[in-house]
Formats: sequence, structure tokens, C-alpha cells
Amino acid sequence: MPSVLRKEMFHLPEGIIYLDGNSLGPLPKAVPEKVAHMVQAQWGEMLIKGWNTAGWMAQPGRLGDRVGQLIGAPEGSVVLGDTLSLKVFQAVAAALKMRPGRRVILSDTGNFPTDLYMADGLAKLLDDGYEVRVEDPLHIADFIDESVAVVMLTQVDYRTGRLHDMDAITKIAHAKGAVMIWDLAHSAGAIPVDIAASECELAIGCTYKYLNGGPGAPAFIYVRPDLLDTIEPALAGWLGHDAPFAFDLDYRPGAGIERMRVGTPPVIQMASLEAALQVWDGVAMADLRAESVALQEQFIAQIEARVPGLTLASPRDPNARGSQVSFSFPEGYAAMQAVIARGVIGDFRAPDIMRFGFTPLYIDAADVRAAVDHIAAVINENLWDDPQYKVRNRVT
Amino acid sequence: MPSVLRKEMFHLPEGIIYLDGNSLGPLPKAVPEKVAHMVQAQWGEMLIKGWNTAGWMAQPGRLGDRVGQLIGAPEGSVVLGDTLSLKVFQAVAAALKMRPGRRVILSDTGNFPTDLYMADGLAKLLDDGYEVRVEDPLHIADFIDESVAVVMLTQVDYRTGRLHDMDAITKIAHAKGAVMIWDLAHSAGAIPVDIAASECELAIGCTYKYLNGGPGAPAFIYVRPDLLDTIEPALAGWLGHDAPFAFDLDYRPGAGIERMRVGTPPVIQMASLEAALQVWDGVAMADLRAESVALQEQFIAQIEARVPGLTLASPRDPNARGSQVSFSFPEGYAAMQAVIARGVIGDFRAPDIMRFGFTPLYIDAADVRAAVDHIAAVINENLWDDPQYKVRNRVT
Repeated sequence: MPSVLRKEMFHLPEGIIYLDGNSLGPLPKAVPEKVAHMVQAQWGEMLIKGWNTAGWMAQPGRLGDRVGQLIGAPEGSVVLGDTLSLKVFQAVAAALKMRPGRRVILSDTGNFPTDLYMADGLAKLLDDGYEVRVEDPLHIADFIDESVAVVMLTQVDYRTGRLHDMDAITKIAHAKGAVMIWDLAHSAGAIPVDIAASECELAIGCTYKYLNGGPGAPAFIYVRPDLLDTIEPALAGWLGHDAPFAFDLDYRPGAGIERMRVGTPPVIQMASLEAALQVWDGVAMADLRAESVALQEQFIAQIEARVPGLTLASPRDPNARGSQVSFSFPEGYAAMQAVIARGVIGDFRAPDIMRFGFTPLYIDAADVRAAVDHIAAVINENLWDDPQYKVRNRVT
Repeated sequence: MPSVLRKEMFHLPEGIIYLDGNSLGPLPKAVPEKVAHMVQAQWGEMLIKGWNTAGWMAQPGRLGDRVGQLIGAPEGSVVLGDTLSLKVFQAVAAALKMRPGRRVILSDTGNFPTDLYMADGLAKLLDDGYEVRVEDPLHIADFIDESVAVVMLTQVDYRTGRLHDMDAITKIAHAKGAVMIWDLAHSAGAIPVDIAASECELAIGCTYKYLNGGPGAPAFIYVRPDLLDTIEPALAGWLGHDAPFAFDLDYRPGAGIERMRVGTPPVIQMASLEAALQVWDGVAMADLRAESVALQEQFIAQIEARVPGLTLASPRDPNARGSQVSFSFPEGYAAMQAVIARGVIGDFRAPDIMRFGFTPLYIDAADVRAAVDHIAAVINENLWDDPQYKVRNRVT
């Protein structure tokens, strides 16, 4: 098996072991030049003509196709834009229109809060009896009944890494007549996804975690191809119009996935993302998954052997995990600060979760071994109780 | 009067006279270094810690205050984010909640289409008898009655530059019990605006035109301070939550203008905008307005004297115009292509409008004179009919 390791394509700060690519991917080396070129040679020299001459206008669809390859989406079914929160709103709003007689948006307590907040905001806005029902992720299938308009789940739990069975849950949702939306925030670029095979209607995700697009990189939305001509975009912006530059007074949705576009795309962020996506050329997701699992298994085995104070909070079965491993520790916040101060960057999630992301593009077995050394020192020697580490340093 | 001219702060391509800053402002020279620093020294070196250490998280509010100074908004009443289309949606949705018994969203045919599209998409989504009523801008006040929940207008007409009387229309809207939303897309950085004095409830705008933030720069939203604690954000994202990093399952809107934030901000675009806004240090909007009017008056006088084929499509009274001048010409599209090919960049808007923006930060009287020379040559010598200029080159 060819290794997917390609550290040389990333800028990795000296002395840092970065196990937080599940929050914000590191800087791919191709990005600074691409961004500088976009700013200076395109914006600076082409001015307004850049929209066509430099291809800015077509970029959200072009990059959508590239992201689509990583999640098993056919060409023309994914487009980039806005933020994941907004794409959640757009997806749920569109889904509700597909099931006008139903009033329940079903999700689980393992979903990332903004997904729940956006759905809740939509329900309040509609003010027509809609309810966001949030249940236990381990038994979510039991809560799918004929009252459910849409099931919206994040495939990988952001705290524990627990992985939902996408195909099985989608089948159950469809059997009960519900629309299925998958949030791939912690899946895209992390695990193999075959979104088309799942037959879910909609999927959304972000590009600043495992896809390394940069802070605030645009989100993506996938629409199952057979729905593209009838889906109501809800956020009906001019760049989703059939003829944006005709400046008609009336909205007429564009062809295909283009209708899910809203406003003017963030071209500088798009340039960064475009360069970042080059890293994926030649990477087979199956290979990446195998290496991710190997790193996670190594990490769990070594932590459990050397750091008895930590308790595994992720599923033990690697097939039930995404690409991260979490341990619980009562003083997890302080401990993570101490670990970070020693150059191993993971993050903390309330109430007691120490979270570590494994990204085989730039993390190898030697990094894992070194990370375990630092974690062992901090926990076993109670270094987390050292005042020098008690600095408040919130990370997202 | 000190001139606001500061060409040396912009990268202006050799041989180009740029009269399209009302579509996309040119590159401020401070931007490339700032963006490079954000990418390399912040993202590259700080990684996830950049959210706090580099101040990324607070940036939308900090830049909101800077933009607020240019539109007469008090500190803490403006925040940056998303796109103008999305901020239209958010503003209209919030406004409708303030007038639950009313069903009409009133706008005019001079509004930019995406504002109408987003309102229409919202009305369709709500599916509860809402109507987007679009009337003649010259008589819009006559259409404001007790059925109107919200009046949403763009202050400066994107085609003709016609300027609405913000204070007068807001007063009428309020007298009839309607909420007033002003779109400042062609106002912010173009003309003096005292949004607080207008007493409108909401305002929105973009930062890539007269504020030179770069292609796809984030939008802004203003909420009248007395409404900040009760307004419903509708797009209820995690960064508008009272405690985003508590990861509560329930949404609880944040304090003040922060609740109008939605998802993760586009940090690279924000860096570009932050550098671009430095250009405004020491610029008095009254001085800028005086110079803008002088340039426009010079342009109209010289075109009318030398190019009888063009017909003024903008109001003749400078007090009734924003910072652009439009002329109609039956072959306007081809003519604008020819003018652009000669290095004078304006743009075309259907059906026959040749549009020229005046931006006294980097355009002076000599530029206007030279632009008129080229326009006169193209129109008077029928150069627009020359096949070499008949290239399709759509601009936004």
C-alpha cells in the first residue's frame, strides 16, 4: 500500500505535533502563492474582469466537483459557498418543502450545536408547528417515524468520533418517508464516503477541517441529482438565478446544482481552497482510511498502556469511529492546555473530553509516539496542575 | 478643502482608468502583505490558536465598528459576515417578526435583483400569505400603507445612481407602522450616510464596492441599538450564540449585534478587508462627497458637450444622485466593450445603460477628461461597431 503521507506539502510549525486538523487543517504550502497570485495578478490587474477572465464565477462549481470526488458525489451535484451553518439552513428548508405534511426535524445530541441552532431558528421562523426533536444518537433509528419530515445527522460525532451507519439510517429514514440530510463536517477528507450510494437527498460539509481550506473556508452542499431540477433553494440569491446578469425582477432558479448558490462567492478563500485541494491528487480514500485507523489504534494502545488516568471516550471498534480519538479526564481542560504548551495540539470539548484528530496526510507513527510521551508526562506527573499551564486558550 | 485623493494607496493597473469601483473596488496596496501575513504567520504558525491569539474571532465586530463609522452607526451596532444576499434575508426575516400581523414586503423596481429574490424566497418559504410588492421607485412613498410590514429599498439605484431620500421615506414608513430596511451597497463609502439619524431599524451593505474589500468580501448588517436585545436573528448560527463554546444544545441569542453573526467568518477575506479599510483613515465623508459631485458634474458637462449620442440616464440634480453617472445608448453593450478595450473600465446594465462610477480616492479630474476622450472617440466615430471590440465580456 502506498503511503498517503505527504508532510512536505504542508507548512508544519517547528516543534509542533498537530492533532487538531479536525478543527482547522494546517496550511498547505501551495496556498500562499496561489492566494498572492489571486490578489495581485487577478484582483489587482484584472479588476472586475476577473469574474470571467480568471474564472471566479465558475469556481464554486468547479471546486464542488473536486470535493465531490472525495465524497462519492457525481459531477454537477456539489457546489461551494457560504458557511456550513447556512448550508444546514438551506438543506433543512429545502427538505421541509419536500414533506409539506410533516412537522418534525429529527436530530441527535451528538450533532454539532450549530446544526441544531439553525434548524431551531428555521422552525421559529416558519412558526407553523415545526419541532426540532433531539434524541440519543445510539438509538436514533428508533425515533424515525411517519411524523418526521427530515432526519439531519452529522455522520461523525464531533466529540467522540462515533460514526453513524450512513446507509442503514438513510434506508430507515426513507422507509418512513423522511428526507435524509448528512452533515459531513468530520467525514469529508477523513473517511471514505459514498454519498451517491447512500441515496440521501442532501449533504453538507465544511472545507476547513480535513480539507485544509483555511479559516473560514466555504462550505459545500450536495443535492441528489434526481432532485436538482425541482429542489427549492429557499436562500434564493442572484447567483442561483437562471440568468444572474439579466437582472430580471423575478427569481427563476438556475439549472442543476447552481441554484443552491446564493451571493457573491468569497474569491480569496476560494483561491486558498483550490490550492489546498491539490494535496488530494493521487490520494485514495481507502488508503487514507487504513492509515488513519492504524494511527488511531497505535494511539489508543499506547495511551491505555502508559496513561491509566485517561478513559477512552470514543468507540473501541475502529469501524465505529471517524478519524479522531477522544479520552475523558476530569481535569481535561487544564490537561489539554498543558499538552498544548508542550507542542502537542489537540483540543478540549466540554465537559471532560480531550480530543485528538488523526490526519495521515501529515501525521505519522513517530508523531503519535511523541504525542503519547507528552500526554503521559502531563497526566502521569500531574503537570496539568502546574500554574504555568493554566492559561485560558479556547479553541474551536 | 483637503483632497481625499490618495492614488498612491491603490494598485491601479498601468493605462487603465477605473470607473467601476461601484462594482469591485481596486486593490489597496496594503492588502497583499496583510493577507500574506494572515495566511503564513497566523494560519501557518498559530494554527487553531489564531482564533484567539490573532483575534480572528473578534474581527467581524471590530471591522463592523470601522464600517459603522463610515455610515453613522454607533459602536456595537454593525457586524460583518456572509454575503449581502444573506444579510437581506436575515434583515427581512427579523423585520417580519416585528410586525406579525402584516404580510407585505414593499420594494421598488430600482432595487438590486438579489434583494427581491431573497425576499421572494423568504415569502415562499414562509408560505403564509406573504407578498413581495415591487413598485415604481419615484412614487414608492405612495405605496406605503398599513398592510406593509417592511419597506426594503436600496438607497442608490444600481443602474441610474438615483438617490432615495432616506430620512423622508423612513419617516413615512414609520408613520404607517412599517419597519424600514436600507441597503447601502452603493452608499457605504460613496456618500455620507447617517444611519442612526435616519432611525431605520435595519441596514445592510457590501464591502467590495466603494470599501475595496476584494472580490467576495463579507457583507455587513446594522441593527438600531434599541432593538439589539430583542431582535430575532432568524439565521441562528453558533457564532451568534450567547456562549458559542459551551456547545449547548439550545440556542440562546448573544448580546448585542453579535447575535446577527451566523457561522465561521471568512478570515482571509476579513484580513483583506481590514487592510482595505485603512485607506479611510482621515477621510471626511463630506469632503469625499464634494469631490465625487465635482467629478460627476465635470463628466456630465463634458460628455454632453462632446458626445451628443449619449443621453443622461441619471438624475441631473447632483443631490439626487449617488456616486455614479449613467448614460443610455441603444448600442450600449457594444459601446462599453469598445470603451473598455481602450482602457476605460465602466460597465453595462441592461437594457441600454452605460454606467460609470466616481471614486475620489483614486479618480481625479485628469482621469475624467481622459475617459471622456475615449468615450467620445468610441461613440462619435462609431468604433463600437468595429468587430475587434465585439467580444462578450460580462461584468458584474
